[in-house]
Amino acid sequence: MEGEPLSALCTPALVVDVDKVKRNAQRMMERCHQLGVQLRPHMKTHKTLECADIMTGGSRRCIVVSTLAEATFYADHGFADILYAYPLPFDKVERCAALSERLDLFQVLLDHPDALERLRKRPLKGGRRWHVWLKLDCGNGRAGVLHSEPEALQLARAIAEADGVELTGVYAHCGNTYNCKGVEQIQAVAQETTSFTLQFMEKLKAVGISCKSSIGSTPSCSHPVSDMGKLSEVHPGNYVFYDVQQSMIGSCGLEDVAVRVLTRVVGHCPHRNQLLVDCGWMGISLDGAGKLPTGYAIIEGHPDLKLLSMTQEHGRVEPISGPLDYSKYPIGSLLTLIPYHSCAAAAMHPVYHVHSEGRLMGKWTPTRGW
Amino acid sequence: MEGEPLSALCTPALVVDVDKVKRNAQRMMERCHQLGVQLRPHMKTHKTLECADIMTGGSRRCIVVSTLAEATFYADHGFADILYAYPLPFDKVERCAALSERLDLFQVLLDHPDALERLRKRPLKGGRRWHVWLKLDCGNGRAGVLHSEPEALQLARAIAEADGVELTGVYAHCGNTYNCKGVEQIQAVAQETTSFTLQFMEKLKAVGISCKSSIGSTPSCSHPVSDMGKLSEVHPGNYVFYDVQQSMIGSCGLEDVAVRVLTRVVGHCPHRNQLLVDCGWMGISLDGAGKLPTGYAIIEGHPDLKLLSMTQEHGRVEPISGPLDYSKYPIGSLLTLIPYHSCAAAAMHPVYHVHSEGRLMGKWTPTRGW
Repeated sequence: MEGEPLSALCTPALVVDVDKVKRNAQRMMERCHQLGVQLRPHMKTHKTLECADIMTGGSRRCIVVSTLAEATFYADHGFADILYAYPLPFDKVERCAALSERLDLFQVLLDHPDALERLRKRPLKGGRRWHVWLKLDCGNGRAGVLHSEPEALQLARAIAEADGVELTGVYAHCGNTYNCKGVEQIQAVAQETTSFTLQFMEKLKAVGISCKSSIGSTPSCSHPVSDMGKLSEVHPGNYVFYDVQQSMIGSCGLEDVAVRVLTRVVGHCPHRNQLLVDCGWMGISLDGAGKLPTGYAIIEGHPDLKLLSMTQEHGRVEPISGPLDYSKYPIGSLLTLIPYHSCAAAAMHPVYHVHSEGRLMGKWTPTRGW
Repeated sequence: MEGEPLSALCTPALVVDVDKVKRNAQRMMERCHQLGVQLRPHMKTHKTLECADIMTGGSRRCIVVSTLAEATFYADHGFADILYAYPLPFDKVERCAALSERLDLFQVLLDHPDALERLRKRPLKGGRRWHVWLKLDCGNGRAGVLHSEPEALQLARAIAEADGVELTGVYAHCGNTYNCKGVEQIQAVAQETTSFTLQFMEKLKAVGISCKSSIGSTPSCSHPVSDMGKLSEVHPGNYVFYDVQQSMIGSCGLEDVAVRVLTRVVGHCPHRNQLLVDCGWMGISLDGAGKLPTGYAIIEGHPDLKLLSMTQEHGRVEPISGPLDYSKYPIGSLLTLIPYHSCAAAAMHPVYHVHSEGRLMGKWTPTRGW
């Protein structure tokens, strides 16, 4: 299929504009370079080797992953310095130990004393130590020990003092930037998360502990505040693809979104003033429900159309107002969906089709599972 | 892992109770036998060989699929008499032709004259004819030509009269049973769909055309009306797993649901009165949003808990009322989710773990893509 146009693909198909991917990756690298902070890109959005190479500038070092399946996949392909940024799962301690004993640098994360206890009970072989990041909640409201609570400092000290364990860093995810609209709000959250993290680092320093610090999220790293330069690392991920959600938050323009789901018209339903397309939730996910005036996605070049509802393999499309002109959408014709959430859309596809300026260049195959 | 308890699995994990699968399959076979109608089970819910064997009683004949990837997968493993029950996709005509020329019996479906024209333009080799089902809309409001419109009969006649093409049957999906509550409502829709289909068959007969007829949906085939015995076939699929949605519709009891998503507690958040679990939308999908008092799933054995919200790999669980007793849910402890929609939950998993009475028996690997 190489060299063929996108229209040669069977649909639904997830297509990746490799030039936009490279541009998004390059801009983030430059932004971090200017800030003076190490970029540790997150792999969870795409989970492919090729995109990881682009995001790391080919170094295959310094990445963050959301599953142990990703960690193993990247380790098997020569990546190192991998941070598994998920609250240490007790069922996977042995698999984490195996990666720690095998890789140059494999790092885990925790936010509970019981997790530290698990690591202490499983000393690593060969004189190695567990590399542990402490997960801090700086207002995001998901995982992490609350930055303001005395337990946070206590847990950091316990990690630093435990035998066979090293406190590698302090990690905060500012996922609360996803509630923002516009750069000002994004930067307010970025500043708050950065300040709380840096204050925590000061508290650590006061008790004689030094380690790395990292915050992240695509909105905050797309519009960083200068104080983020005082951190050791940042760890955004979605930016490599971006999506409609990120454009609504203000992280990017719609022209920066590197992924699309291609779909074709498979039915005309004039009695309902609708089209049917061959993209159901199996092709784009149900993420974004109720968030867009155009339904589950933006239909590129057709702002008058709405992806109203989906079943497993069917999508119902209708005009936002007025009657549908079916002559514009013959059966078999192609429509292009810009996904609300690229992580969720990509997760539905066993393969991504990569193109440059609309010419197919090859396929990327993500890893799946846990 | 064979013989080990479910707790040996890393989470999140989709587990299948093979005894319930066999019981659900057996009951559907018996129900159809008693009605005197041929069962053509749909594969879209599970997409595995093993479950297809159970649903076909080992015959590997007479199935229906939602994607050409499924059709190819089953064909590659010795299945025949496969109906690809999707509005004929113009981008996949050549792949359909290849399957038609290779299999004993491969069948396509259409609902538009342009699709018939595509088939006529691609005559099959070896003197074979296209086996075509006409998709009828009997009130479901998705694909299909409206049963009441003159176009339906015109298209049926055009298929029957076209060179190299055979009208194999008339196919209606009563997905509108998904809006029902209780057996009475389900049977009203089943009766309506059956009556409309049989009336259409009479119209065909009056112009000298005879072919098969088929309706389906898990609710209608779980509580069939006697007139369904006058049809040639029925084509339910979800019944092999069932799910919370089907129990709410009234297709089954909750005790008939054969799948679960196992998850573990990965965080305590007393300041928010919440737990974190390791099942996000990557593990169970976003299907069912707003449909259940217990959130995105039922948490088995814990009717007081709610799966409130999910991100990619995290779920937030909180009590429906009152404070959470954390001593009952230590970090690492297992919770069992009954999915709202088993098709959507299964779609997120690259492998299903099969058990009998809680002892692991092996894995089933679904096919994916299109």
